[in-house]
Amino acid sequence: MLNISIVTIGDEIRIGQIVNSNAAWIANEITKIGANISNHITIGDDFQLMEKVLNEQIEKNDFVITTGGLGPTHDDITKPVLLKLFDDELIFHQPTFDNIYEQFKIRQREISDRNRLQAYVPSKSTPLPNAIGTAPGLMYHFNDKYLFVLPGVPAEMKYIITHSILPLISKVISEKSDNVTLYKTLNLAGIFESNLADEIGIVDEFLNGSTLAFLPGYKGIRLRIGTVKENFQEAEKEINRIKDILYKKIGQYIFAEDDTDLNLEISKILKNKNWTLSVAESCTGGGLGAEITKIPGSSQYFLGGIVAYSNEVKVRQLNVRPITVSRFGAVSQETAVEMAKNCRKKFESDFAISITGVAGPDGGTPDKPVGTVWIGISDKKATKAYNFLFGNDRLVNQERAINSALYKLYQLIRKKHS
Amino acid sequence: MLNISIVTIGDEIRIGQIVNSNAAWIANEITKIGANISNHITIGDDFQLMEKVLNEQIEKNDFVITTGGLGPTHDDITKPVLLKLFDDELIFHQPTFDNIYEQFKIRQREISDRNRLQAYVPSKSTPLPNAIGTAPGLMYHFNDKYLFVLPGVPAEMKYIITHSILPLISKVISEKSDNVTLYKTLNLAGIFESNLADEIGIVDEFLNGSTLAFLPGYKGIRLRIGTVKENFQEAEKEINRIKDILYKKIGQYIFAEDDTDLNLEISKILKNKNWTLSVAESCTGGGLGAEITKIPGSSQYFLGGIVAYSNEVKVRQLNVRPITVSRFGAVSQETAVEMAKNCRKKFESDFAISITGVAGPDGGTPDKPVGTVWIGISDKKATKAYNFLFGNDRLVNQERAINSALYKLYQLIRKKHS
Repeated sequence: MLNISIVTIGDEIRIGQIVNSNAAWIANEITKIGANISNHITIGDDFQLMEKVLNEQIEKNDFVITTGGLGPTHDDITKPVLLKLFDDELIFHQPTFDNIYEQFKIRQREISDRNRLQAYVPSKSTPLPNAIGTAPGLMYHFNDKYLFVLPGVPAEMKYIITHSILPLISKVISEKSDNVTLYKTLNLAGIFESNLADEIGIVDEFLNGSTLAFLPGYKGIRLRIGTVKENFQEAEKEINRIKDILYKKIGQYIFAEDDTDLNLEISKILKNKNWTLSVAESCTGGGLGAEITKIPGSSQYFLGGIVAYSNEVKVRQLNVRPITVSRFGAVSQETAVEMAKNCRKKFESDFAISITGVAGPDGGTPDKPVGTVWIGISDKKATKAYNFLFGNDRLVNQERAINSALYKLYQLIRKKHS
Repeated sequence: MLNISIVTIGDEIRIGQIVNSNAAWIANEITKIGANISNHITIGDDFQLMEKVLNEQIEKNDFVITTGGLGPTHDDITKPVLLKLFDDELIFHQPTFDNIYEQFKIRQREISDRNRLQAYVPSKSTPLPNAIGTAPGLMYHFNDKYLFVLPGVPAEMKYIITHSILPLISKVISEKSDNVTLYKTLNLAGIFESNLADEIGIVDEFLNGSTLAFLPGYKGIRLRIGTVKENFQEAEKEINRIKDILYKKIGQYIFAEDDTDLNLEISKILKNKNWTLSVAESCTGGGLGAEITKIPGSSQYFLGGIVAYSNEVKVRQLNVRPITVSRFGAVSQETAVEMAKNCRKKFESDFAISITGVAGPDGGTPDKPVGTVWIGISDKKATKAYNFLFGNDRLVNQERAINSALYKLYQLIRKKHS
């Protein structure tokens, strides 16, 4: 098994001003090709601590990947640490300078002395091309171990990982004919975690040493199969064996595999069928439309929507009958149905989704506590509304309402599609 | 200085299936009250590794905070590790059981045997109340050190940190009369990073050993002052000294301090003035409305909006003149102005914002490349539109458009407000 540590360097991550999405991205990419992530470590811009952590992690792992601390500003200290760690010195690297020169030409900016310094790299390292920024990645290779030092800018880090590091890891894994760790994720919706466990039954019977993890989330449940085998082919075979068993047991809840979500699966069906969609949102304030339009090319099927946050807007812009609101309330089956139906007519779309609910923290009543949400789905034949009771957290309620709405639409169009 | 390590436990974080936003949130909260985050470490659900990492971090730090591995499913291993580490045993804890019972009553669900197990806690630990979920936090206190063990569910973790841990850290800091690290963040908008550096000038002259970090992002630039002093009062004094200098130099770009954003500042002014707002969105698909309605109580000023994703919707729902779209295009000053003005009239709001642009990756032309965005702001006196050119990334363009729109509205209402 090839063990890899991800070390993130930077005060802005350490003190929590930004979230460490780099580490998650790297871990996900590396896991996909069968290597094992042993840990992530985040430290600040601290010379001694960095030296210590790098020494420890190089000792314990086959690969160490660092991000951050390679920029032109004064608090970037990664290079000085490398010089000390490897008793090394900086030398001028012409291809790196040429790249910096090109980058600045494209951006029509002058090269400063600070930028010029980035063309000096440690002599014992191999610079890794960075087509997106000015700081190259650096690779040290010694005693069968690798240290990669990458800039913290996500796009630059991703470029170097994709072009230089992932191919190398795959090569090392296949040459070592070493153990391979592989994962496969099944995305489920429409079932609770506890019920799912019951339907799957005793897992030890069919796992045979592989693992199965339950990952519940607002977007549904993900089931992750994991296995360790002698090579990639064996691992894939084992994953497929377990996958087949799971499809037989709970296939009806699986909507897709690996890195996808309902939104993407919906977009595929709507595009394929030339169907159009509009939305009428209250408590999500536009979040459903925003989610739908995250998908490039969503203009092919998404026409638009009405954000009817106030009751007056529901009546005036969505033609919800005032008596419906006054008799049943803005958060009710009746209002959700009228919102969806009228939205579909107004936009002349094939489908319309409505969301109306009490996101919180205020506005709850004994009858309709915070977290109550009605979701309407309308097509040319019928309009139905579904009731949900989420929790107390406003942002979570909004997110859950959006994902439940997408799931209800998905159920309907998958049936029509197949 | 009080040193704190954040240890995250869970395979889903280790292999990159989810981003570690818990660690960032904890680090940010703790940094605000003057303690020092020494590192974040993420490891999988691995008994031996967890034991080792906890031992190491307890040795090196004053506080260790772990999240994850406390749920009811079989792969949660934190409690067994604690039992071994402290030679401890599980005992039944009545208040925890009462809480589980209440939680299930509210959700109208049956308590399973697995859930019942959560009421058993290590005897040498102190359970910390969790009003949001079923797993209590656990605290160990020994030799002047503290270990906190928290569930990984963000809302539950946040509840326990806020109610039990932050007050304790503050108390320990004040009792130790130890060195205190303090930060202050100034939020800026409307200026580029390089120009900002020029306006601030040579920082060494006034920093006097404290630090100043530039943190550019989509929501503007944040400037972070950092200082280490003997106590909280001294640190605050030093922060204020540097802050005053910065306000003199670049005060016109500072819109707020610390953990706020434009959205929150806007909500304060609109509520205070009883002004109302509506939105007309194209390329952001509802994201501006969603952002506005993240604020609890936004129903006091936000009426709703039209998501006019297709040109037909712009014409039919927002009364944009067809000739405006055909002559100037959907992404133009003229369309943005009509969208904002007509939206304000339609919703009878005091202010309206419009956004129309090319989010990408397709739809760009030589005249209007991907990243071109027009933002309109309308009040009863006038409607103006502003042009922006962002980059190539669809999601970043949507986020930048939303934040630029909020900034333009903020500029207008701040002027009217003051």
